[in-house]
Amino acid sequence: MSLAGVIVGQPGAAQRRAIAKAITLLESTRADHRTQADALLTELLPHSGRSFRLGISGVPGVGKSTFIESLGLGLIEKGHRVAVLAVDPSSSLSGGSILGDKTRMERLSVEENAYIRPSPSGGTLGGVAEKTREAMLVCEAAGYDIVIVETVGVGQSETAVAGMTDMFVLMQLPNAGDDLQAIKKGVMELADLVVINKADLDPDAATRAQAQITSALRIFTQHGRVRDWKPQVLQLSALTAKGLDSFWQAVSAYREARAASGALAERRRHQAIAWMWERIEAGLKNDFREHPAVRELLPRLAQEVDDGRLPASTAARQLLDARRN
Amino acid sequence: MSLAGVIVGQPGAAQRRAIAKAITLLESTRADHRTQADALLTELLPHSGRSFRLGISGVPGVGKSTFIESLGLGLIEKGHRVAVLAVDPSSSLSGGSILGDKTRMERLSVEENAYIRPSPSGGTLGGVAEKTREAMLVCEAAGYDIVIVETVGVGQSETAVAGMTDMFVLMQLPNAGDDLQAIKKGVMELADLVVINKADLDPDAATRAQAQITSALRIFTQHGRVRDWKPQVLQLSALTAKGLDSFWQAVSAYREARAASGALAERRRHQAIAWMWERIEAGLKNDFREHPAVRELLPRLAQEVDDGRLPASTAARQLLDARRN
Repeated sequence: MSLAGVIVGQPGAAQRRAIAKAITLLESTRADHRTQADALLTELLPHSGRSFRLGISGVPGVGKSTFIESLGLGLIEKGHRVAVLAVDPSSSLSGGSILGDKTRMERLSVEENAYIRPSPSGGTLGGVAEKTREAMLVCEAAGYDIVIVETVGVGQSETAVAGMTDMFVLMQLPNAGDDLQAIKKGVMELADLVVINKADLDPDAATRAQAQITSALRIFTQHGRVRDWKPQVLQLSALTAKGLDSFWQAVSAYREARAASGALAERRRHQAIAWMWERIEAGLKNDFREHPAVRELLPRLAQEVDDGRLPASTAARQLLDARRN
Repeated sequence: MSLAGVIVGQPGAAQRRAIAKAITLLESTRADHRTQADALLTELLPHSGRSFRLGISGVPGVGKSTFIESLGLGLIEKGHRVAVLAVDPSSSLSGGSILGDKTRMERLSVEENAYIRPSPSGGTLGGVAEKTREAMLVCEAAGYDIVIVETVGVGQSETAVAGMTDMFVLMQLPNAGDDLQAIKKGVMELADLVVINKADLDPDAATRAQAQITSALRIFTQHGRVRDWKPQVLQLSALTAKGLDSFWQAVSAYREARAASGALAERRRHQAIAWMWERIEAGLKNDFREHPAVRELLPRLAQEVDDGRLPASTAARQLLDARRN
C-alpha cells in the first residue's frame, strides 16, 4: 500500500511509522524528497482539514508542557485523537529542539491516541513553520482530530502559529509584583483566549492580572474578530488540572460560534493564501540575495544607506535594476 | 544655480518654488524624471536629517488639523521652520488627498516659515509613503527643522508614518460612554505619546480614557523602547491650545533622552535599511506578478489553494519554479 494509503488507513503501529516517515520526508532538504513530499501532500490534502487546530504560546516556564499533557490526556479520555506539534525558531540555531521533547510529556507520549513531534530544526522561522504546517496536514489525514501547535514567545513564532491554527491561546503567569508581565509587541492582538496559569500560587495576583488583561483586550479590540467571539481571560492551574474544564468549554464555545458564522472556514482560506504569498516572498527574497549582481552590490549600497550617503529608495531601485539586467 | 543649490540656499520665494518643483519631480512616474529625482535626492541627502520628524495619527474628526496648526504657529513663533506633509492612503483611490489640504490650515499656510504639502496621490501605500519620505528629505535640506507627517487611522499608514519619523503620536478622542474608542490592531504599540484631544468637552471621560490607556500601555511595553522613554498619555484641547505647552515639553524630553542615548540615530539607521528592503520586496513582488508564466499560472493555483485542493507551499514552489525557468 502507498504511504498515503497507510496514513489515511487504520490507526496503529503501521500508521504511526508511516506518519513519521512522511514527516521525515517533508523535513528533508533533498530536491527529490521535496518532489515526493509535494506529491504526498497533494494526495493527503483531501483527507486533511477535519481537525480543530489549537495554537498555544507562552514564555519558557509558564507551564505549557504540563498544560498540554493534562489537556491531551483529558481529550483522549473523551475519545479524541491528539497530535502535538511545535514551532521553535531557536531550533534553527541550536540544531535541536527544546520544544515538543517527548520526555517532557511522559504520560501523553505513551498514549496510543497521541502523536507528539518536536519542532523541525534548521532553516529560517518560515521554513520551520512550513514543515510544521505540512506535518499538521499529515496528522489530520491520519485522523487526529485535535492538533495542538505550541511555540515559545520568542521572535515572530507566535504570528506564524496563529497563522496556521483555528484558535490562538496565550499563556501568562500571574506576577508577584504590581507590574504585569510585559506582553510582546503584537502578540496580545493575536490571542483568542488568554489563560493565566499557576493561578493557585498567588490568587490575588492572578485576579489582578485577569482584570488588567481583560481591560487591555477591551481597548485593543480587533475589529474583524469581535463579531462572533470576544477574547476571554481565564485562570487555571495546569498542575492541579483546576480550570481545565472551563478552558475546554471556552474552546468549544469559540469553535461552535465561529463555525456557525463561517469565520472558521474563512480564516483557513485566508491563512492558506497568506501562507502561499509568505513562501513566495521568502523565495523571491532568497533568489534576490543570491543573484550575482546583487551579491556584489548589496553590501556597498546597504553600507551607504546606513551611513546616510544614499537614499534608501535609490538603493532599492539600483539593486532591482541590477537584478533585472 | 542648480535646483539642489536653490533648495539648500536662502529661504524665500525662490526656495519655495524649488521645493515644489523638486517634490513634483519625485512624484512623477516618468522614468527620466525618476532618474533626475534620484540624482537630486542623492545630492540633497548630506543636507538632510537635521530636523526632528514628528508623526501624528488619528481618526478623522479627532482634530489633527487644528492641533497641527496651533502647534506649528507656536513653533514658528519660537523661531522654528515647520514643514507639514501627509500620508493618505485613500488618495490612491480618490486620486486626490483629503489630508494636508492647505485651506484646512489657513493661518499656518500663509506663514513664511511653514511649508504644507498634501499627500501624494495614486499608487500603493508603499508608493505614497515613499514619496512623502523623499519630500521630507527635500524639506530638511531646505532648512525646515521640524517636519510633521500626519496620517489618518486607516490601513497600514500608521506603520508607514511611524517608520519614517523620530516620534509617533497617536491622537484619541475621549469617549462619552464607558467604552473607550477601539484602537486599531498594532497601532498603540507604535505610539511614543498618546494625546487625548478635546479633553475639555468631557473632562471625566478624558481622565478615564487617560487612565485606561496608561494602564494598557504599561502592559504592552515594547521591550527595546522603554530603556530611555516610557510612552505617556496627555490630555489637551487643540481648539483652546490648552495643554500644547505640556505636549511640546514631552516631545522635547523625548528628543533629548533619545538623542543622548543614541536611540534616535539608531532608529533612523534602522528605518533607512528597513525602508530599502520594503521597496526591494515591493519591487520583487511586482516583477513576479508581471512575469508571463506567473500571470498564466497564478489565478488557477491560487484558486486551487483557496478550494483546498493544493497545499499552499506546493503552489508557492510551482510558481517560483515557473518564474525561474
